[in-house]
Amino acid sequence: MRVQYEEMKQVFFQILTNRGLSSEDAQIAADNFATNSLEGVVSHGVNRFVAIISSIDKGIIDVKARAEVEQSFGAFERWNGCFAMGNVNASRCMTRATELAGGYGIGMVAIRNTNHWLRAGTWGIFAADRGYLGICWTNTPPNMAPWGIKEKKIGNNPIAICVPGKEGRHILFDGAMSQYSGGAVQKKAMDNSTLQFPAGYDSNGELSCNAAEVYNTGLMIPMGYWKGTALSIALDAAASVLAMGSTTHQLEPGFSNAGEKRGVSQVFIAVDVSRYGAEYTQRIVEETAQYINECDNGSGKLHFPGEGRIRAIEENLKLGIEVNDRVWDNIQDLF
Amino acid sequence: MRVQYEEMKQVFFQILTNRGLSSEDAQIAADNFATNSLEGVVSHGVNRFVAIISSIDKGIIDVKARAEVEQSFGAFERWNGCFAMGNVNASRCMTRATELAGGYGIGMVAIRNTNHWLRAGTWGIFAADRGYLGICWTNTPPNMAPWGIKEKKIGNNPIAICVPGKEGRHILFDGAMSQYSGGAVQKKAMDNSTLQFPAGYDSNGELSCNAAEVYNTGLMIPMGYWKGTALSIALDAAASVLAMGSTTHQLEPGFSNAGEKRGVSQVFIAVDVSRYGAEYTQRIVEETAQYINECDNGSGKLHFPGEGRIRAIEENLKLGIEVNDRVWDNIQDLF
Repeated sequence: MRVQYEEMKQVFFQILTNRGLSSEDAQIAADNFATNSLEGVVSHGVNRFVAIISSIDKGIIDVKARAEVEQSFGAFERWNGCFAMGNVNASRCMTRATELAGGYGIGMVAIRNTNHWLRAGTWGIFAADRGYLGICWTNTPPNMAPWGIKEKKIGNNPIAICVPGKEGRHILFDGAMSQYSGGAVQKKAMDNSTLQFPAGYDSNGELSCNAAEVYNTGLMIPMGYWKGTALSIALDAAASVLAMGSTTHQLEPGFSNAGEKRGVSQVFIAVDVSRYGAEYTQRIVEETAQYINECDNGSGKLHFPGEGRIRAIEENLKLGIEVNDRVWDNIQDLF
Repeated sequence: MRVQYEEMKQVFFQILTNRGLSSEDAQIAADNFATNSLEGVVSHGVNRFVAIISSIDKGIIDVKARAEVEQSFGAFERWNGCFAMGNVNASRCMTRATELAGGYGIGMVAIRNTNHWLRAGTWGIFAADRGYLGICWTNTPPNMAPWGIKEKKIGNNPIAICVPGKEGRHILFDGAMSQYSGGAVQKKAMDNSTLQFPAGYDSNGELSCNAAEVYNTGLMIPMGYWKGTALSIALDAAASVLAMGSTTHQLEPGFSNAGEKRGVSQVFIAVDVSRYGAEYTQRIVEETAQYINECDNGSGKLHFPGEGRIRAIEENLKLGIEVNDRVWDNIQDLF
């Protein structure tokens, strides 16, 4: 089925206010769930909504809490998320990072004790939509096998880098450290299909392209094998040091869904690139996007990172957001 | 042969001053070449020295130039590298980033018109050795094939993230976006050996694990295939926007060696994590390092990122730095 963006937002808003979120917080959170879906990332939008509500019901997320500043060093502030809604905390942190950048050229907020922010890309886009270059990353509980180790020991620690383009045509890297996303492996597993490259270890501890096997073990491997391993560890150490928060190894492993991550550490950086004139920045971004689009070697043009999002917004605003019937039914049950 | 660190530095210093670098600049540059070698990265140290001198002799590097501030926004400064020595520029930029971080908590310098900085990791370590968390990245000329395209169209855009540990035991990610480093492919090609994963495209345009084939085409692919492609593009766009400098596609492709890169854009970020007490930071880093070391699944303990560097320093300080005889002979010819 297809659900219109505004309708989806209203449904989320109503359920969230019923759960005790303030109107302001529910607005931020509902907008985030709906916008991620609008942008084509239903796995981190409408499909994750039930899990997040479950985290609220279990008390993992404290809907009455509000993140607060713990230390201010000028352009860098350290916050305590107080286990409030992760996407509401993230919105406040990136808002503050852009304010700091407005004053100092660059601003950073690092937050501890926060919850799942849903999607890294969102908060990079949040900055870019306001004319700032945005960089943010989070750590996660142990949910990925380091290269050569057949246990979930490191986090997939998503990171986003978003460079503001004209009218929302941002260049956006938005990705976790795993070679394939959990959603991609799950989808291929349901289709019983094989992946082009090893996605993780199978039940015999062998690298496997069989999606169902890897989905069953959950032992996903990092992008670039040893390289993604190292990057994941460095991102975790950096986030937890900057936030004075929990590291991956201090977080409870084995959450069955990512909505239950608790007490993660996140970093939000904004840079005020409008200082040189937004036109300059937008031209560089657009030229880069066009250069990438012109990369055609007989097998079709290359898309620039973030381009899929722009197409998804156009299509989903017109046709409504495609939602699995059962997922939407389950959401109705939350009223 | 083995060359002692101090002797190596002296040789570099002498040759660089002979080429017209000021004593101050030659000291910085010589220290950088020698220290990269000491830390086990001879490909970006002693083995790259002749190429950099050649760039000086060709006028690509202007030994008389000095990088200068173009715009200051508080915690963020935009610099012009004036095509001076890349590692000297990088040293000045990260020094300034740490000064800004000392004042504002975080500091950033973005520099355009600069030259090869030799090694990303160096400048992250530079910050970490002074108690700051360091992040830096550079763009490069087109030297890597984007996923699905059999042409060098994007840069391998190295990035470093260095989280300061006790007595130099930093957690360090230091890597380019290619799955294998150029040096690794070259070495395997000379040994006629096969790589575990595809390193790039062969002369038939097929993905290949044959090091010699990939070395010949030069069509290296990104780590994580599509993921490294996207990250490379985002890092390039971010660096060139922040520095108001050249993007990868504006840089001349096909340099036969990386010493000839000209006019790249680089970003240096430092965060003053000593504000919470260095002990706290060092404890988090050490606990993370130990946790990673304890990841043993029968196939040996996992090293934390940056650990190899620490072992290399110990060994090379004791035994001297291992240098290929011919490389050392060629350096003597530069006097």
